[in-house]
Amino acid sequence: MKLYRHKVQYYETDQMGIVHHSNYIRWFEEARINLMDQMGISYQKMEEMGIISPVLSVEADFLRMVRFGGNVLIRAVITEYNGIKLAVSYQVIDKSTNMVQCKGVTKHCFLNEQGRPISLKKSYPQIHKLFEKEFAKGKRLEKKREDNENNSEKEKAES
Amino acid sequence: MKLYRHKVQYYETDQMGIVHHSNYIRWFEEARINLMDQMGISYQKMEEMGIISPVLSVEADFLRMVRFGGNVLIRAVITEYNGIKLAVSYQVIDKSTNMVQCKGVTKHCFLNEQGRPISLKKSYPQIHKLFEKEFAKGKRLEKKREDNENNSEKEKAES
Amino acid sequence: MKLYRHKVQYYETDQMGIVHHSNYIRWFEEARINLMDQMGISYQKMEEMGIISPVLSVEADFLRMVRFGGNVLIRAVITEYNGIKLAVSYQVIDKSTNMVQCKGVTKHCFLNEQGRPISLKKSYPQIHKLFEKEFAKGKRLEKKREDNENNSEKEKAES
Amino acid sequence: MKLYRHKVQYYETDQMGIVHHSNYIRWFEEARINLMDQMGISYQKMEEMGIISPVLSVEADFLRMVRFGGNVLIRAVITEYNGIKLAVSYQVIDKSTNMVQCKGVTKHCFLNEQGRPISLKKSYPQIHKLFEKEFAKGKRLEKKREDNENNSEKEKAES
Repeated sequence: MKLYRHKVQYYETDQMGIVHHSNYIRWFEEARINLMDQMGISYQKMEEMGIISPVLSVEADFLRMVRFGGNVLIRAVITEYNGIKLAVSYQVIDKSTNMVQCKGVTKHCFLNEQGRPISLKKSYPQIHKLFEKEFAKGKRLEKKREDNENNSEKEKAES
Repeated sequence: MKLYRHKVQYYETDQMGIVHHSNYIRWFEEARINLMDQMGISYQKMEEMGIISPVLSVEADFLRMVRFGGNVLIRAVITEYNGIKLAVSYQVIDKSTNMVQCKGVTKHCFLNEQGRPISLKKSYPQIHKLFEKEFAKGKRLEKKREDNENNSEKEKAES
Repeated sequence: MKLYRHKVQYYETDQMGIVHHSNYIRWFEEARINLMDQMGISYQKMEEMGIISPVLSVEADFLRMVRFGGNVLIRAVITEYNGIKLAVSYQVIDKSTNMVQCKGVTKHCFLNEQGRPISLKKSYPQIHKLFEKEFAKGKRLEKKREDNENNSEKEKAES
Repeated sequence: MKLYRHKVQYYETDQMGIVHHSNYIRWFEEARINLMDQMGISYQKMEEMGIISPVLSVEADFLRMVRFGGNVLIRAVITEYNGIKLAVSYQVIDKSTNMVQCKGVTKHCFLNEQGRPISLKKSYPQIHKLFEKEFAKGKRLEKKREDNENNSEKEKAES
């Protein structure tokens, strides 16, 4: 998946001279919707089909300040998915320094138009497969990253 | 009508150290909805009845800066109404100095749930009367204010 | 401390017909700033004195949907404070049903104008005392609530 | 100048199912800042040099609704500039239909860090030239468009 790019806007700053923290929550949404676009199922289409996916919880750690005029890249990865519940984790990366400025997680369920929880696996198997595939991809990448880290630690230890 | 009070929030500021101008447009909405509450027809109820009242245009003059922590009072007055179209004008007044910081106008029509223009006069005469009454009140107040101004100018001229 | 009241605005809704989740983060800020006003140290004054208190992290659980036109009451309680770090927890309560719609936590540190971490205890003992007092009050209330819950459970068990 | 593209975000919608009108004012800002980037003087750099350019007024006509998931292109043109005052006009165009969804104007002055009005012409002649050049370009394009319209009307009349 391609990282999602967001240009930091003036109206996103506050009088501290940095991006107001509530905007990162909005950027998570931008990146999540972009991830779904890349997966081949737009959130817009899901809503048209009668599927709603509200946010159940959000967590964000603001590690470094982001300022007006900069560009951030957002990595959105599906870290939990079972057909009923979904978790997406985010890294907001400064495009010029490559440093992680903020990381976070959002959790979601799926509802029908009457507001009742549904299982994508049962009700929308086609969409379910897209989420499952993306979730598997996220796990493979995660493993690869861990292996890389372990190897580099091992190398350090051996040297 | 009682003036609508808004406490200026931190998240409404930008890095210029003042309220971002887009928020005044939101305050106009707060004051307009409060005006309707005071008139006895909540916008919420109108939507439940199937009446939608989108904003057709907005104008705002930002006369003085408004800062975090202050309180503003907003005067919303119906300045045009004929059952089909509505205009509301606004004055955003600094509570501590009594000075007008911003003034503006929004224009509206009324639509049914299919998005077709409707006449409140024909389709919702009860609601129409409430708007008409408020519009008349606005005109009386306006006249009174003009008379006061003319009188005080006359007095100045005569003295 | 008095609960903080917020009237839900139209511009805070999204096309799901509910309040967009990013706004709760903004309401937390409204309630936190109001708590400080009630404590006797406005955030505005702190900034004028050169103290900045950025948000380090935020967590929110969205338990029930909040809709336009409703009123929410927000309880903000200091749950951690040691002069250097501060945590505030929030409950967003529907005014008409008395149910908790959302709960959350924000964590903060204190910086000087150069962006360096400071200890309120050392640098601003007067303000430190206000935070300490409020923190102690929060703990007493918390204990009382737990005792009440234990007692009512005990009563249930005994009856 | 290249048109500025904005992807419509979910958090920009309201419960009417369309983009909340206050967001167009923010898009105007995005397009204005992008125009300056293209002109070769970023707003960020101007602020760093001590020049602030607040919004004095805004006007917007909402001609057609814009919905989540769509893309809009924004044409920002300098329609007034004399070194002291600046006006920028905007057209928000639906990328798929090519129709103008919204048009508007913002007016600006230039202040120094003490908040006093300045003349770019006198104080920052280099930046002044960039604005003047862009303003002239806008006028040429405007004339061309008018000529085209007149010609096509003439052709119609003659045929």
